[in-house]
Order: sequence, then C-alpha cells, then structure tokens
Amino acid sequence: MPVTSFPPVAIDLLVSAGSIVPIEPAGVVLEQHALAIDKGRILAVLPTREARARYQPRESLDLPGHALMPGLVNLHAHSAMSVLRGIADDLPLMEWLQGHMWPAEAAHMGPAFCRDGVNLAMAEMIRSGQTCVNDMYFFPDATAQAVRQAGMRAAVGLIVIDFPSAWAQPGEYIHKGLALHDALRGEPLIKTIFAPHAPYTVSDPLLRQVRQYATELGIGIHMHIHETADEVAQGIARNGKRPWQHLRDLEFLGPDLIAVHMTQLTDEEIEEVAHYGVHVAHCPESNLKLANGFCPVHRLQMAGANVGIGTDGAASNNDLDLFGELRIASLMAKGVTLDARAVPAAKALEMATLAGARALGWDDQIGSLLPGKAADFIAVDLSAVNTQPVYNVISHLAYAVNSRQVDYVWVAGRPLLAEGRLLTLVEDELRAKAAEWRHKITGKH
Amino acid sequence: MPVTSFPPVAIDLLVSAGSIVPIEPAGVVLEQHALAIDKGRILAVLPTREARARYQPRESLDLPGHALMPGLVNLHAHSAMSVLRGIADDLPLMEWLQGHMWPAEAAHMGPAFCRDGVNLAMAEMIRSGQTCVNDMYFFPDATAQAVRQAGMRAAVGLIVIDFPSAWAQPGEYIHKGLALHDALRGEPLIKTIFAPHAPYTVSDPLLRQVRQYATELGIGIHMHIHETADEVAQGIARNGKRPWQHLRDLEFLGPDLIAVHMTQLTDEEIEEVAHYGVHVAHCPESNLKLANGFCPVHRLQMAGANVGIGTDGAASNNDLDLFGELRIASLMAKGVTLDARAVPAAKALEMATLAGARALGWDDQIGSLLPGKAADFIAVDLSAVNTQPVYNVISHLAYAVNSRQVDYVWVAGRPLLAEGRLLTLVEDELRAKAAEWRHKITGKH
Repeated sequence: MPVTSFPPVAIDLLVSAGSIVPIEPAGVVLEQHALAIDKGRILAVLPTREARARYQPRESLDLPGHALMPGLVNLHAHSAMSVLRGIADDLPLMEWLQGHMWPAEAAHMGPAFCRDGVNLAMAEMIRSGQTCVNDMYFFPDATAQAVRQAGMRAAVGLIVIDFPSAWAQPGEYIHKGLALHDALRGEPLIKTIFAPHAPYTVSDPLLRQVRQYATELGIGIHMHIHETADEVAQGIARNGKRPWQHLRDLEFLGPDLIAVHMTQLTDEEIEEVAHYGVHVAHCPESNLKLANGFCPVHRLQMAGANVGIGTDGAASNNDLDLFGELRIASLMAKGVTLDARAVPAAKALEMATLAGARALGWDDQIGSLLPGKAADFIAVDLSAVNTQPVYNVISHLAYAVNSRQVDYVWVAGRPLLAEGRLLTLVEDELRAKAAEWRHKITGKH
Repeated sequence: MPVTSFPPVAIDLLVSAGSIVPIEPAGVVLEQHALAIDKGRILAVLPTREARARYQPRESLDLPGHALMPGLVNLHAHSAMSVLRGIADDLPLMEWLQGHMWPAEAAHMGPAFCRDGVNLAMAEMIRSGQTCVNDMYFFPDATAQAVRQAGMRAAVGLIVIDFPSAWAQPGEYIHKGLALHDALRGEPLIKTIFAPHAPYTVSDPLLRQVRQYATELGIGIHMHIHETADEVAQGIARNGKRPWQHLRDLEFLGPDLIAVHMTQLTDEEIEEVAHYGVHVAHCPESNLKLANGFCPVHRLQMAGANVGIGTDGAASNNDLDLFGELRIASLMAKGVTLDARAVPAAKALEMATLAGARALGWDDQIGSLLPGKAADFIAVDLSAVNTQPVYNVISHLAYAVNSRQVDYVWVAGRPLLAEGRLLTLVEDELRAKAAEWRHKITGKH
C-alpha cells in the first residue's frame, strides 16, 4: 500500500534541501532529502518526495541549492571578550594577558561589558552557523541572559579563579556559580558547567571543591590545561610534576572534564586523555596566534580521545568563525603529522558538531541530525562561486565554504537566522554598543 | 592662501572611506581619507575634507564604514583547476596528482575547460578582493582571454613541461609560449611569465632555454620548487644534489624568478634565496592540505627575502580566498617559530599585496596605494559584527575580516565588483558551466 494513502501528518516545519549531511552516520550525504520538524525536535530525515506525501507542515522551506547540517558547537569561547577584539595582537600569551587583557578587564569588566560582548558574539556565532557555545567568563549570569535573548544553546561556565574580580572575591566563585546553577534549572537551552580557569590560577583546595560538587551534582567541568610550555614548566617548578599529572593525582580527571588547548602532551598523557575519557577542546587559531604550539589532534583521535573545536575569545583569534577553525584544524593536523589523510573532511565536520556535543554531555540532544534530537541545524548555500562545482558536499563544507554562506540557523526548531538576516539580534544596536565600548576603553570617538 | 580658492580639478572618481591602509608606508592607517582616481591611476591619497575641496569627480563614492586597501595579489594559482574543486581530498601530493588530477586533466582539459575554470576562478578572486593573479596552467591563451574579459590583472604563465598535453607536445611549449607572449604585447593588464612546472618535470636543456629567453626578453619565471621532501630526495638521487642547488648550478636563480612552495629549505638555501633575490610564493593552505611541510616564511623574511602569498589551485585548497590565506600565513609563522611576533598583521597584509607585486616586477604599478600607481584597490566593509568594535583596522583586515566583506573592487580604475555584485561575470552562467563540467567528469546530473 503506497505511503500516500495515509492521511498526512501535521507538523511544524519541513525543510527540504539539495543535500543533508547528518554527521551520523559518518560521511553520509543524503541528496534531495528533507528534515521534518515538530515541537522543536527532528521527527524524520527522509527523501523530499516521501516527506511531501507524508507530512502537512504548517511551514515549509525548499532550499535546492543548500546543504543542511547540524549547527556547529563551539567548544571553547570567552564570548564577552568580543568587546576587546583586536585591542592587542602579535604578542605572547602572558604579555598579551598581563599587559593588555587583564588591565582592560580590570578597568571595564562588569555586567554591561559582558552583556554587550556576549550579544556581539552571539550575532557572529549565529551568522556563521553556530547553535551552541561552551562559554567561560566572569558574570555568567549576564552571559546566560544574553544567550537566552539570542535564542542560542549554551553551556555557561561557572568561573572559578583565585583572583578577585568585579564578579566575585576569591572565596565566592563556587557559591555564586552554584546559585546561578540553581537559578538556571529548568532552562531548556542553557546548562551550567564549572569553569576553573587553569591549573596555575586555581588552588588545589578549590579544585577539590569543584571536583566534589561536579561529581555530586552532575555538573561538567571546563578548564584551560597545558595551553603553553611555560605553564607546564611552572607547574613542574611548583608541584614537581606537570599540571596534567597534578590534576590526575588530585583525581580531577574524568569524562565530565573538557580540557582546553592541550598543546603540550607526552605520549603517556595522550593515552591518559583517552583512558580517563577527558574531552579536548582544540582551539587552533588561538594556539597559533599566541604561538603556544600544536594540539596533537590526530594522535589524540587515534588513541580514542574525543576532540571538539573552539574559537577561544575574539581577542585572541580574532573572529569567532568555527568553519574557519575546523578547516585549520584539519589542515594543521595534516601539516603537523605530514599525513594528508589525518583529520579528513568528514572528521573535521564531526569535530565541530557531534564531538562538541559529546564533550558537553549533550549528544543525546544535538550534534547530529537524528530523529528525536533537537532541531538545531543550519542551511549552507553551496551555489556561491567558491563552492562550485559540487562533487562532494562534505569536502566543500570542510574545505571551501565561507561561513557567510550560512543563510538559515534554527535552534530547537526556532529560526535565529533566515535569508541571512538575524532574527533575535539587531545589528545596528550591536554596532552602536561596540562603538561605545571603543570610546570608553580608548577615549577615542 | 586656502586650497579652496583654486578652481577644483576634474577627475574620474573620488572614493572616500572611514580608513585607508595604503600598505606603503608600512603599518599606516589613514582615517577619513579619500583616493582621487583619474585615467585609471591614483592621483592622490588625502584627507576627505581636502579632497572634496580640491576635486570635482565625475563619479564619487562615500564609504564611511569601509577600509580601502590595495587589491590582493595572488602569487600562485592554477585558475582553471576550479573545475576540479573537491574532486579528491585528503591524499598526499603524488597520489592526488597521479590518481586524480592527471587522469581528469587527460580526459577533459582543453580550451573550454580552461575558459570555464578561469571564469569561475576570476569570479571567486574578484569577490574576495583579488585584483591580480600569477597563473600557471595549460592553454594560457584561454586563460588570457578569460582574464581580459573579467577585467583582472594577471601574469599568465607560459607553461613548460616535458609531458605532452592537449595544449602542446614536449618540444612545443616554449615556442607556443613565446607566440602568446608576442600576441599579448601591448595588453595593459596582462603580462606573460615563463612557467616551467618543476625541477622534476622539466629537463635541463629546457630549463637552460627558459633561462636564456627569460634573460634576453625580460620575461619573469614562475616555478614550483621544493614543494615536498620527496621531490628533494628524488633530485638528490637523480643529480646528486638538491633541486635548489641544481638550479643554482644551472645559473637559473635570479630576481626574475618566483619559487613556489619552498617547504624544504636548509639554512644555507634560505640565505641563497635572499642572496639571489629569488621571490617566494608561499601557499600555506595547499602545503598543509597535501601535508608537504611548512615554508619557513619568517626566517626567509629575516634573511631579507621577499615572500608573497598564493592560493594554489582550488583542487588543493579548496577555495581561492587570499584573506584566509594571509591569515593562515601569519598564524602558521607564529606557530612554527613559537614566536607570536612573527609575521605581524601589517606584514601579512604586505605579503598579500606589495610583496606579490614586487615578485611580479609590477611594484611600480600596483601593490600599494601611492600616487602614480594604477588604481587597483578594494573596499572592505568593517561594519559586520565580526569586525566590531574597530580598534585597529590593520588587525581586523589580517585577523578578523571575512572575504565576503569585500564590497567593491577596482582594477585600473574600472569597477569589477560594486555593492557586492560582480560587474564583468554572470554568476548564473558560471554555475551552469560548473554543473556541465560536473556532469561531463562524473557522468552524474
């Protein structure tokens, strides 16, 4: 009996496209397929012809020149720092931090700085196809508020550090974080994640507390680890061992931990990353720009570790373009290993989607276009001259697409970008705020 | 006596902008300045207020949110290969060449392939801010024709190789090239350049002939050199010395030579590059993608060598985005040297403009916005969210701008892109041709 003899099922949205790259199963391209969406979830991924017979969508969109794929997951960002984009460049990490970032933050950082910076970052992230971000910064309450208004999905970092800041005094971070965790309970698109800054800025008693609360409450942890060779050398001088080993001995490692950067790893540590199930957030542009070294992505993956991709903050990148980032991640992995097969196109796309979702413990909800998952997806126009002809959609998405080719973005079925226009943020307002911050920080109009 | 008391001078075009980055002098940003253009040349770079008093332009354009800079110079491309974009990826050079590129070229390459491929490439190059390309491919006559129609400036390579091709038999290349050289005399925007493919594909007698004609006729040379470690090893096996040394002993090296790739260089060779005044065309994305190693850009520059930037062909990149390329060039240089100061933002911009012009012997005409030079320039919109706020225009152009923010492109004063729309190429036609080639090559519709 043909399918069409059933009465069509009413659904919220049907998006048909020239191709769909669902990420799961890996390496698959579905031509002339459609996504059926209802109540914010993916109901089915099926041939367009079949979808049109089976569903009666309240809204439908036909994108024959586009590819649909899961929204990108930015696994490490300091969104608010967009306010400081381009304020200091071409400097090593500690000089950049101590000479430029920390003074600017000390003078200006507060709820308004964070709100405006996160708004600007959300606009850039949505425009370039991101639907989820794992953030780490002060005033996570302001971040959560801006993320909610933008309609993005986020893991909001509960910053923990041994320094005083406008957000908290040294003893207060964890409890302010837990209060925010409680306040955000029930938010459908926002979760919290502990964000102890780094082994060199968070004391052992605090790390122990973070570990205990994380385990008891089921909250993840997100931390800069082995970003530079100096950090490792100083850790050895302080504790007689490398920071990674110190964290291991503190029983800090586990599958709820996202280790960011990880440019300095011994063979044994690479095995341990996989053994403990620690996830790695690789930030290739930031690591290169600050001359911190290369995260051994390919070797981590060969050992079985899960590696996602982050942009880091706009002050050390200087854009928040995850398509650019996943391309560099793939190219760098080939260059460093001298193996052109390392991190092939499909793997690079998976890193920027499903691997990020997995690291956040959110792979039951996002990261691939499987029925039952949330409808977090994007439509990328492949008709631009730089993605013609189309032999291989996965190759183009990894190696040729420009992030401006993202025309549509949905999070949980809600459109945030349509026909290249932001729906939840007003760009003129963002520009006006950016100009205000420039004036405040530099004194120049 | 105030300037305004003189009668205003009639000129073709006045473009005022929020800022101008002239590249010469290095590191300078001129705020609220304008470019006065007449008869295809830059008449003056001056404050907008003064320009409005001094000139009576037949056409004028005010771009307060844009930065003007010289058009980018793509120092190494195989433009026609855009037809093969994404046909094979994640493979080492020789497997990619022998298993995929050469068979596809053997079956399909001809004047139509080249015309359509170059048209597609020109569209992508113009859209992303390039005004000049140094090309190397078969059917340079078809390339020249397509370049002329697009209105681009180009050095068209006179390919020389020991293999037969649809373009020429082994003994014919040089004379077919010289015939084209003669035919193109007097072209204002096109010059020819010898393009012996590589030390491993061009025999010594041919190299000697190329050198002799180049010197006698004042034609430059453009050649792949030391692209891979294998090439060097095979050169040693064949000649008992490294290809660079072999070329040196053939007296092939000189300031009219552009050496492309150069990923494998000893300290002595780096000194020799500078000593002989050989220019280097650095193609970072292609070198990474094919896992060929890193060109030691920073060390070459420190030795005094001139290093420009190329995209290589779209089949090994896979886009032709020189903004992306100059960013990776800067980031990679920092990463490889572990020095965050290596190839700072202003230097990266210079590499993609003036250094390329210098390598082509065209720095008297292009590469910087100095009065007297040709009006080859672009306008980049900095109002996009990913380039806000604007503390430092040079930093944004190097590290944050997306090539889609290029809204206007002029070559010799002629607009090729305006308000983001191509004026000399029709994108729908390019897409139709691309689809035709995909069908011919794969048999798939």
